[in-house]
Amino acid sequence: MENLDHAIRKNRTAKTTVTLSHNGVPVANQDILVQQKSHEFLFGTNWGESTIALVNGELSGKEKEQAELRNEHFLRLFNQATLPFYWARFEPQRGQPQTQRILNVARWYRGQGCLVKGHPLCWHTLTADWLLSMSNREILRAQLDRIQRDVSDFAGVIDQWDVVNEAVIMPVFDRYDNGITRLCKELGRIELIRAMFDTTRAVNPKATLLLNDFDVSPAYDILIEGCLAAGIQIDVIGIQTHMHQGYWGVERTLSVLERFARFNLPIHFTENTIVSGHLMPPDIVDLNDYQVNDWPSTPEGEKRQAQEVVLHYKTLFAHPAVQAITWWDLSDGGWLNAPAGLLRKDQSCKPAYDELLKLIKGEWWLPPTKVTTNADGQFIFNGFLGGYELSLGHQKATFSVKEKGESSISISL
Amino acid sequence: MENLDHAIRKNRTAKTTVTLSHNGVPVANQDILVQQKSHEFLFGTNWGESTIALVNGELSGKEKEQAELRNEHFLRLFNQATLPFYWARFEPQRGQPQTQRILNVARWYRGQGCLVKGHPLCWHTLTADWLLSMSNREILRAQLDRIQRDVSDFAGVIDQWDVVNEAVIMPVFDRYDNGITRLCKELGRIELIRAMFDTTRAVNPKATLLLNDFDVSPAYDILIEGCLAAGIQIDVIGIQTHMHQGYWGVERTLSVLERFARFNLPIHFTENTIVSGHLMPPDIVDLNDYQVNDWPSTPEGEKRQAQEVVLHYKTLFAHPAVQAITWWDLSDGGWLNAPAGLLRKDQSCKPAYDELLKLIKGEWWLPPTKVTTNADGQFIFNGFLGGYELSLGHQKATFSVKEKGESSISISL
Repeated sequence: MENLDHAIRKNRTAKTTVTLSHNGVPVANQDILVQQKSHEFLFGTNWGESTIALVNGELSGKEKEQAELRNEHFLRLFNQATLPFYWARFEPQRGQPQTQRILNVARWYRGQGCLVKGHPLCWHTLTADWLLSMSNREILRAQLDRIQRDVSDFAGVIDQWDVVNEAVIMPVFDRYDNGITRLCKELGRIELIRAMFDTTRAVNPKATLLLNDFDVSPAYDILIEGCLAAGIQIDVIGIQTHMHQGYWGVERTLSVLERFARFNLPIHFTENTIVSGHLMPPDIVDLNDYQVNDWPSTPEGEKRQAQEVVLHYKTLFAHPAVQAITWWDLSDGGWLNAPAGLLRKDQSCKPAYDELLKLIKGEWWLPPTKVTTNADGQFIFNGFLGGYELSLGHQKATFSVKEKGESSISISL
Repeated sequence: MENLDHAIRKNRTAKTTVTLSHNGVPVANQDILVQQKSHEFLFGTNWGESTIALVNGELSGKEKEQAELRNEHFLRLFNQATLPFYWARFEPQRGQPQTQRILNVARWYRGQGCLVKGHPLCWHTLTADWLLSMSNREILRAQLDRIQRDVSDFAGVIDQWDVVNEAVIMPVFDRYDNGITRLCKELGRIELIRAMFDTTRAVNPKATLLLNDFDVSPAYDILIEGCLAAGIQIDVIGIQTHMHQGYWGVERTLSVLERFARFNLPIHFTENTIVSGHLMPPDIVDLNDYQVNDWPSTPEGEKRQAQEVVLHYKTLFAHPAVQAITWWDLSDGGWLNAPAGLLRKDQSCKPAYDELLKLIKGEWWLPPTKVTTNADGQFIFNGFLGGYELSLGHQKATFSVKEKGESSISISL
């Protein structure tokens, strides 16, 4: 733990020398208030069905209150949201995409200062049923058309995409027939990934493009190696950790990090789950097979979850390659009806939420802090990478600290 | 089983029209004896320590007799031998390779009409200990030098190589430190494979080059896909099936075949084992961990082995992508002291040997057969792909049938 805290300070903070001037004259010997306004690191969650409904004016009464409460808790802690683009739900009828409904919520999150990611553009699960009547050539055309349309419609609002999801299993997925598995069987994983990445990048050259997978075996790191050797530009490696069957622990997490960090690409932990109830039995292979009506959050489970969440976030935040951690889901009752939330079903905070808040907006955060400039108008402060605001009386200025280590910045008030 | 037999005839036989002439005149209405002399398909085993010793004049008395008996059994059934190039044994002292000893046995096998394969050129297990004192750059240089030397020394005798062995596990192998794992960690699997394949091919452009692995999970087929996408020319996919823990069965074998056949490359089943004693416990992950003094062959085990061997060979022989099956080891007491032989320790034949003989030189073989040419000097026969001899009185001619389906051939006596 001490090692993790040490690595966190080493990899996530900077010693910044700020030089303040006014009309070219140093602002000497003045009391300044400096405070952190945002994190450079991305702390996120997935969308929240209630948030989508709320933003689109579909809620009232108790439901609306609950959704507002969820959003309050979200905004206190997080600065990133992953929005759903599952084809089966986004465009259940061909030609009638839910663009406006999702665009509304994407803009709302952006308005709250959050980075928004779209998830996913190409996936065999929850893909459009209507692909099944097509030839593979037509499926490819429809899939690329879909990417061109959606990436274009959301450009400037969503500039980060999980382009291909779960490619390792994609061509051998045998639970049910679907158009994307058929296509991947024919093209192979690498050529499918190439087509999707090239198309996405052509439509939005500024976007950050992820390959995302739950399979963290050598199959996935070999796939990444193959894509890179084939000249495909992957911007970020996405790793899922749906730990419904138990927390990985620090050692396993570090060994996964070691294998995927070798590509010198940023890593996003895109889908993180630790339940606060009983664990899913270890013999379940496809998590979707575990169907329960009731999966309660328990006091002991919440205590364990809080400890594991702290350890998980510290382990990832300490590693220099990791740039984002996305929790999945924020509130209980989401995917698989699992008690996976940091909030309970009534949107009350579990200990894991409180502990994360203590880290993200406490231990890893610079509260309003008084400093005094020297005769040259300088002051030095140590802080976590992110956005800052300084105040001198009624005057305010904002600045960012983006690189760890030592840096200097000059500000004219 | 009937389906397999049907597929075998479809994929492994040809209907050949032979036209015989003598000084331009059809050899009409003559009785001809036609017989198969060899298989196009490669049926092989690994080297046999006793054969290496025998050929090098190191045996006498009972040991010599036993080695000769092994060779008799080998030659009755097989037409391919895999010879050992484990670096730790081939060159235990740097600069003193066992070239002559292995060259002697390679030439002996060639003299018996066998194709000889070298195994392996690059592998982390049994690699040279003396790499450990080197930098990665020096290890790479030594590995490539070794390939250049050995592939060159054996060219014309050995023109088939397992170039890289077990690359899937290579960089994450953690049982003990070794130079090749270090190198692979730095280069990545694909760039290591590229260096080894390019160097081997440069030295012997005529050679057939295999990538070989025991890992038949998606990790291996993704690795192959990555190598091909990166422009590495793999001639043959090598698949090991050390079934010490139990026969795969037809269904699993077919599913592996389906996944690896999609590359439209030939497949060699390079290392096949089915024991005729108790099975290795299923919890053993690295087969080398199972160390027993005594692992007897039993009558029930031999009966089961025979049934499974027949099914395994039929399944593979029936699939058009498979070009070779290599048994590992021919006699009991080889690797892991397993009762994996088709022969017992005293070189007597187990039922599996007898059953294979019935297939390879019986059901899948054309014995001396009388045919009669028509007025145009033609006769038609159905036979398994391979080498044939025909006799007309004292006159003999040889010819090959290499492609399935229908073909014609003209022979001048």
